[in-house]
Amino acid sequence: MSSALCDQFGIDFPLFAFSHCRDVVAAVTNAGGFGVLGATAYSPSQLDRELAWIDDAVGGKPYGVDLIVPAKFEGKGEKLSGSDLAARIPQSYRDLVDDLLRAHDIEPEPERRIGGASLSGNTGRELLDVALTHPVKLIANALGVPPDYMIEAGKERGIPVAALVGAKEHAVKQVAAGVDLIVAQGTEAGGHCGEVSTLVVVPEVLEAIDGAVPVLAAGGIVTGRQMAGMVAMGAAGAWTGSVWLTTEEAETAPHTVAKMLAASSRDTVRSAGRTGKPSRQLKSEWTDAWLPSAEGHQPLPLPLQSMLCEPVIRRVDVLAAQGHQGAQALATYFVGQGVGLMNKVKPAREVVREFIEDYLAAADRLSNSLPG
Amino acid sequence: MSSALCDQFGIDFPLFAFSHCRDVVAAVTNAGGFGVLGATAYSPSQLDRELAWIDDAVGGKPYGVDLIVPAKFEGKGEKLSGSDLAARIPQSYRDLVDDLLRAHDIEPEPERRIGGASLSGNTGRELLDVALTHPVKLIANALGVPPDYMIEAGKERGIPVAALVGAKEHAVKQVAAGVDLIVAQGTEAGGHCGEVSTLVVVPEVLEAIDGAVPVLAAGGIVTGRQMAGMVAMGAAGAWTGSVWLTTEEAETAPHTVAKMLAASSRDTVRSAGRTGKPSRQLKSEWTDAWLPSAEGHQPLPLPLQSMLCEPVIRRVDVLAAQGHQGAQALATYFVGQGVGLMNKVKPAREVVREFIEDYLAAADRLSNSLPG
Ligand SMILES: Cc1cc2nc3c(=O)[nH]c(=O)nc-3n(C[C@H](O)[C@H](O)[C@H](O)COP(=O)(O)O)c2cc1C
Ligand SMILES: Cc1cc2nc3c(=O)[nH]c(=O)nc-3n(C[C@H](O)[C@H](O)[C@H](O)COP(=O)(O)O)c2cc1C
Repeated sequence: MSSALCDQFGIDFPLFAFSHCRDVVAAVTNAGGFGVLGATAYSPSQLDRELAWIDDAVGGKPYGVDLIVPAKFEGKGEKLSGSDLAARIPQSYRDLVDDLLRAHDIEPEPERRIGGASLSGNTGRELLDVALTHPVKLIANALGVPPDYMIEAGKERGIPVAALVGAKEHAVKQVAAGVDLIVAQGTEAGGHCGEVSTLVVVPEVLEAIDGAVPVLAAGGIVTGRQMAGMVAMGAAGAWTGSVWLTTEEAETAPHTVAKMLAASSRDTVRSAGRTGKPSRQLKSEWTDAWLPSAEGHQPLPLPLQSMLCEPVIRRVDVLAAQGHQGAQALATYFVGQGVGLMNKVKPAREVVREFIEDYLAAADRLSNSLPG
Repeated sequence: MSSALCDQFGIDFPLFAFSHCRDVVAAVTNAGGFGVLGATAYSPSQLDRELAWIDDAVGGKPYGVDLIVPAKFEGKGEKLSGSDLAARIPQSYRDLVDDLLRAHDIEPEPERRIGGASLSGNTGRELLDVALTHPVKLIANALGVPPDYMIEAGKERGIPVAALVGAKEHAVKQVAAGVDLIVAQGTEAGGHCGEVSTLVVVPEVLEAIDGAVPVLAAGGIVTGRQMAGMVAMGAAGAWTGSVWLTTEEAETAPHTVAKMLAASSRDTVRSAGRTGKPSRQLKSEWTDAWLPSAEGHQPLPLPLQSMLCEPVIRRVDVLAAQGHQGAQALATYFVGQGVGLMNKVKPAREVVREFIEDYLAAADRLSNSLPG
């Protein structure tokens, strides 16, 4: 494709792929798109190893990293240890989780494991420092305006900083803070998301920031025709996450892949019951337990809810993989409504190829609709 | 535009406009689009007058009617009178409404008015009979598969029957039942809507019905660029509702128009608290009172909830128009997330003109993104 964004990033096709899996990142980059590694869950030394692997695999082609450094979280500015934070998780919430496990024939562990506070953003700076020792070509951030150190690091080194937003007001704030690329993400997206649909939030953001920086469309995009629709509307390209979860390279657990292939677009739910911020995921008996209609348990703020839930969800996933029925009913995974269109496991490079073909066919369709 | 659908309907531009207001219907049809009159709220003789007026105004150009005949409703097949139905509205619901009014400085009426059971579908057949005495070129229906008499009447007279759906499974059922045109409507739409976004449900429906009948995209579409995006994806055109509410011709109350012009896309909510089925509308203290987190009051089934609520909402609207503050906090109106992009009152013909221009510009944008 010919576009300013392709020139800026040195890519053939402005398809950005968020993934936690280095193989997906490298495969998309090598196929002419732009892979972005989700780095939040890594320790600094792990991240270093992952990026070194990607450097080898892409031979100089461009890729990026994504850090979630939330702008607001429990204990911000208080210098708390993980156990100080853990002490803020009320007993009634621990009990609710234990009851839920027992109701699914899973014995709660006698020593409760509480997860790391990765969503507290405390490790963001260290992860960024590691990333900057690699030739990353994009730094992305979600859940609020990036911290100053991130924007400054980008400006100093000429690396664009991208921010994910779910509302035009947030896009305006991000541009004012110095962000170079906006990802306008609709409510149909996998992971954290706002309320407004991609079809509405993309033109709203484009209008609100009026060309100040390029805008990528995100949320529900799993085909080239959807991407083409977004480019017709004025987006500079697409930012995607869900579609890579069922590629051959992804490390998604087999029972999760099976759930995704079988799922329709109505099998996801936007719920704050996993991290404390609304995020879209597969509906399950876990997400049911945190519906607003359930009695009295509002999800806890970042990072407490995920400290409480992530270790349990991971344990549930291990049991589910072994065929445990209660665990299978509880198991969930971040994914967007596009899951309804994800019906086959494919290599990531094949997904990129199909995106391109489908994009071209869509462009033809629109131009054939014109008179003459 | 050149398309099979334009040829079939004898129109220049496949923009379908749903409106309760005859002036909007005629203006859109006269501007080269296709106006569709929402007929549910009319008595048969009123509908006859409205359609006669439109016949005069459009001079043979095509327009349609929309009847909501729900496939399922309380008392279906029981031959109940309005007051039999009204007796099924529990006292606790009447009390909730009265309490809500009092909390907003509105004295409940001593003799409660209970609304007509238009959403029971009982009047659908009579309304259809009236419509068929006019040269209507489309019969549309929502909330389930149209009754047999509607599909048969269409087939006999060669008038296409359209159905609104919010999920691919429903589209498949509608095609099997003999429907000629599918409106695939996303969760961002004004009025009754499903959970899946337009960007996802449109390709899902297209894939599921595999060309059996044309598909119009609906939900959140208030600009030509969005319509172009949907045509690129394979839709035959757009079906719209919200965008006409702030046109000069619309009979929307001035305080409602003011709320809509000021609203962002995050000021709507999908709630069953008005009709018993989830529908999107402006957030207000009325919709707050029916959130799933509110204590114990699940909305009643069709048509009971709207029999209870419509007369109250109409009274609230009258008071709101007079400047009553409590009423203004309660006032709500069906509208979609596209309301965030509706910022100016314009003549309906101007809206059509802008759609066309914006559509052409979007087609250019997409074709300029291609190499060479
Ligand atoms: C499994 C999963 C995990 C995600 N984790 C992150 C994350 O750590 N940081 C982030 O910025 N976005 C994250 N996202 C959101 C993606 O960056 C992207 O915006 C989103 O997936 C786009 O919508 P789609 O899933 O419909 O393609 C995640 C998405 C998924 C599906
Ligand atoms: C005020 C209002 C009333 C509506 N009433 C009906 C109706 O009676 N019958 C129907 O089929 N659709 C109805 N709809 C839905 C529209 O037909 C259309 O599908 C919807 O407005 C499309 O989404 P949009 O509002 O984002 O354009 C209504 C929509 C609005 C905004």
